[in-house]
Amino acid sequence: MTQQKTRALNLRIPGPTPVPPDILAAVGRPMINHRGKEFAGIVERISERLKDFFLTSQDVMVLSCSGTGGLEAAVVNTLSPGDKVLAVSIGAFGERFATIAEKYGADITMLPYEWGQPARADDVRHALKVDPQITAVLVTHNETSTGVTNALAQIAEVVREFDKLLLVDAVSSLGAIPLEMDAWGLDCVVTGSQKGWMVPPGLAFAALSERGWQAYETSKMPRFYFDLGKHRDAQAKGQTPFTPAMSIFFGLDVALERMAEEGLESIFARHKRIGALTRDGVKRLGLELLCTDERFASDTVTAVKCPEGIEVSAVRNAMEDNYNIILAGGQGKLSGKIFRIGHLGLCEEDDITQTLEALGETLAKLGFKR
Amino acid sequence: MTQQKTRALNLRIPGPTPVPPDILAAVGRPMINHRGKEFAGIVERISERLKDFFLTSQDVMVLSCSGTGGLEAAVVNTLSPGDKVLAVSIGAFGERFATIAEKYGADITMLPYEWGQPARADDVRHALKVDPQITAVLVTHNETSTGVTNALAQIAEVVREFDKLLLVDAVSSLGAIPLEMDAWGLDCVVTGSQKGWMVPPGLAFAALSERGWQAYETSKMPRFYFDLGKHRDAQAKGQTPFTPAMSIFFGLDVALERMAEEGLESIFARHKRIGALTRDGVKRLGLELLCTDERFASDTVTAVKCPEGIEVSAVRNAMEDNYNIILAGGQGKLSGKIFRIGHLGLCEEDDITQTLEALGETLAKLGFKR
Repeated sequence: MTQQKTRALNLRIPGPTPVPPDILAAVGRPMINHRGKEFAGIVERISERLKDFFLTSQDVMVLSCSGTGGLEAAVVNTLSPGDKVLAVSIGAFGERFATIAEKYGADITMLPYEWGQPARADDVRHALKVDPQITAVLVTHNETSTGVTNALAQIAEVVREFDKLLLVDAVSSLGAIPLEMDAWGLDCVVTGSQKGWMVPPGLAFAALSERGWQAYETSKMPRFYFDLGKHRDAQAKGQTPFTPAMSIFFGLDVALERMAEEGLESIFARHKRIGALTRDGVKRLGLELLCTDERFASDTVTAVKCPEGIEVSAVRNAMEDNYNIILAGGQGKLSGKIFRIGHLGLCEEDDITQTLEALGETLAKLGFKR
Repeated sequence: MTQQKTRALNLRIPGPTPVPPDILAAVGRPMINHRGKEFAGIVERISERLKDFFLTSQDVMVLSCSGTGGLEAAVVNTLSPGDKVLAVSIGAFGERFATIAEKYGADITMLPYEWGQPARADDVRHALKVDPQITAVLVTHNETSTGVTNALAQIAEVVREFDKLLLVDAVSSLGAIPLEMDAWGLDCVVTGSQKGWMVPPGLAFAALSERGWQAYETSKMPRFYFDLGKHRDAQAKGQTPFTPAMSIFFGLDVALERMAEEGLESIFARHKRIGALTRDGVKRLGLELLCTDERFASDTVTAVKCPEGIEVSAVRNAMEDNYNIILAGGQGKLSGKIFRIGHLGLCEEDDITQTLEALGETLAKLGFKR
């Protein structure tokens, strides 16, 4: 208990991620006119800078909502009710993406994988061959619920072969691990502020390719708040179509400056290094990763199988009570079976070694024998 | 110019409203686990306290979006495509509410008024009599674009007579001027954090009556992010269905405490006093209100006709440059014709007397002769 009081919070969930003090100070700034010059400058700077992280020449729109709202924007701006859509799902967020499209009337063909496994580009090719009426493919880049990163570049190559629309959930990947929107030919890419960006939740960022904007013109799903055309047109004037979550914009402005200073390649290298450090440490403790093929293990979140006879809640509670370290549990059918360690955004080696050390001690106390 | 540097910003737009330092400090708090006990306590406290302001025994859901997102939630959770809907509109936001319903396939009958005029309950009665197939009525309580407050209690009485669904945009009224959800029989009430609540933008609050929840069960408009049932179920467990804009929740928690201390009746009395002070001062300067019948003049925002021969932009720029006072311009067809003074949320007599004094000096310099 003394330990907890002296240790700073080590928030090791895969979002919201820790926010550095300078960004928090910006988040707590007083309000200004959201239609004035100063805020227009912020909107312009943010939307320009985000292109460097999406690696796109297209506009990146900033929506005031969570990542899920961003996924809904991807769907309703490009599809029409009745459209045949292939939903590649490797976990809870893959299912959610499919559910959103289904709720809006898309005709979904699921391509599901066992949770913990990545999607295979060949399966996507097969599915598109079997049903030429499919017009769009939904895919999760990095599945937060399982700690698996799909081979997005390869999947995109297949989707381009068939000339279908490719909508990508990059919520827990973008800004942390490599994704090249234009080079890979992705048609819609969505991410969220509380992940790699070191900013509190409240904003989603979305971009459409030229093909994506063509789909927007003919798409018939209803939309208003999430209408990306409205957002694009307002942003061109340094505005947002509706009152934005200004505090998070203030924070993002500082965060993007900080990320530009670190540099994209350094950010990727840091996540790669820390991802490997986490997985190696977990295995050294005698634990198993949910993702068995490490070529697809995520560098932003690691899902660990909870050892037989030990409760996930016991591990998480002890880690919180004794070390002030917060781990995530499992989602959906993995609830009670895994715990997850987030290592995206603001994360250094020390955060992980501290976590692994505490985890080893905790498991020993709970009676885990390797 | 010296004046601007020494004067604190006086943000007199009708939202975002100024945020007090203690609330800003909360907004800038470090991140915690959004699925942990502490955040659950905040969600529970907020959703319980909001009932006292809505004057309802129903659940109040907190959505991470702007007020417009809240209006979309009102529509998609209660209506079905093809539903006949009467849209009472007295300004830009009345039109927006109708447009949202139309985009989702409602069959809209407009009941429009000249901008600056309130709606008449008798017209609503007539419209409902003429077309018995109308199933729902949309109405703006306080029209931010014109500074007019509708006689919502009377309009609600008529809608109850005909047993139709009544959806209310209370974005710039709730928490500042009287609104009694249960007593008046309102079926959906929506408001936004950056108005009367002294909190930055980023959250909308929405509640459904029992009749509203019945409509929810049969409503066929597509929804996912704005699904109020998902929000209700998550909130019952101290959660939100999707990652919430936590910083704004932190601020709201402090704001509601502060508002509870001031007390609802005192808050209403303050807004009434300051509304009258603003209008009297504006008229004393020889200016005309857009709202000619003062029984309907808004106690949260005052729209002022810009005198002949003087540019709205000249007035606003001079007020900002010389006094650090920010006024709003006109929206839509009132652009260039009016300016607006916001006086909701954090607003005391001094803020208004300072504004009126500066406005008098500014107009004199711009050559205004009364």
